[in-house]
Amino acid sequence: MNYYEKTVNEERKYTGNIINVDKVTVVLPDGRESTRDVVRHPGASVILPITDDGKIIMVEQYRKPCEMISLELPAGKLDAGEPPEECAKRELQEETGYIAGKLAKVLTIHSTPGFSDEVLHMFVATDLVEKNAHPDEDEFISCRKYDISELISMVEKGEITDAKTIIGIFLADRIIKGEHKLS
Amino acid sequence: MNYYEKTVNEERKYTGNIINVDKVTVVLPDGRESTRDVVRHPGASVILPITDDGKIIMVEQYRKPCEMISLELPAGKLDAGEPPEECAKRELQEETGYIAGKLAKVLTIHSTPGFSDEVLHMFVATDLVEKNAHPDEDEFISCRKYDISELISMVEKGEITDAKTIIGIFLADRIIKGEHKLS
Repeated sequence: MNYYEKTVNEERKYTGNIINVDKVTVVLPDGRESTRDVVRHPGASVILPITDDGKIIMVEQYRKPCEMISLELPAGKLDAGEPPEECAKRELQEETGYIAGKLAKVLTIHSTPGFSDEVLHMFVATDLVEKNAHPDEDEFISCRKYDISELISMVEKGEITDAKTIIGIFLADRIIKGEHKLS
Repeated sequence: MNYYEKTVNEERKYTGNIINVDKVTVVLPDGRESTRDVVRHPGASVILPITDDGKIIMVEQYRKPCEMISLELPAGKLDAGEPPEECAKRELQEETGYIAGKLAKVLTIHSTPGFSDEVLHMFVATDLVEKNAHPDEDEFISCRKYDISELISMVEKGEITDAKTIIGIFLADRIIKGEHKLS
C-alpha cells in the first residue's frame, strides 16, 4: 500500500520558545488534498539512571500543560547542534547531580507522531557518581531514588502517567530481569 | 517543595484542525514570571487488541510530522463529549474491523506533558470478533497481527518508535506473562 503524503505547501503558524507550529498541506495517496498541523520540536534526551543497587533516579516537577506534579525520568531538550549523548550527560547532571560512568543508547521514541516530530533519545546511565545538581533557572525540580517494583506499581495505579517514563520503567524492569541486554 | 505555576495570562496563538496552541504566562514558585507554550489536544483512546491466540493487532500508517510509515496500536482522538471507552470501541472497529467482546481500561498516559495536555486512555481489547474496517476518509491504513516476541524485537531494533505503542507492547508482554493482571 502507498501511504506517502507529499507536501505541497507549508506555513509557519506559530513560533514559540521551544516549539513551532506549521500547517502543512499534503496530497493524500488518492490524490485529494488535506492539511496536517505539525508541532516542530528540537528533540530531547531521556535518561534511565540505574544505581549500582538497582534503584532508579526520578525527578518530580510541575507540568503546566497538564496542571499537575509529574514524577518522570530525567530529560531535557537538545541544544542547537548538540549530540543526544551529550544532552543526556548534561541533563542527568543538571537535574539529578549524578554523573554517568556508562551511558548506553537503548531506544528512539516518537512521543506523539500524529501531531509532532519530537524524537526522544533514551539512554541507560549506570556506574553513577553523585555530584551537585544545578537545574535551569526556570526549572523547579527535586529528585529521589525508587525501587523498580514501587515504580511499576505507581504506573499501574495511574500515579505515573508520562509516556517516556512509563517506557523507561518497563524497560528498567526488563533490564533488571535480564530480558533486555544492554549493548 | 512548592512547584505550582499560577497562570496570569493565556493567549490563543493557533487554532488548528485537531490541536490549538496557547501561550501561557505563569508565575514561578520564586515569584518571577515565565511563559509556557501549551498544545491543547482533545485526548485520544489507544487500544491493545489481544487475540485469543495471543497475537496483537497493529495498524500501519503514514505519519506526516515524522515523514515515516509507523506501525502502531490502533488509536484515535475523542470526538466532542465522547467517553474514552466509546472512542476505543469505535476506533478499533474503524481501523481494524474488529469488535471487542471485552474492553478493560489499563493506563492513562500523558504523551508529552512538557508541551501538551494530550491524554491517552489505553484499553486492552479481548474476545475479538472480526467485522469490516472503515477508516476515516483521510486515513490510509492497513492492519495485521503480530506475535509479541516479534514486536518486542522491533521495539529493540528501533523499527517501532511510537511511544504509546511501545508502552502497549511492553504491557502486552507483562499481561501474557501474568505479571500484569487485568481487572
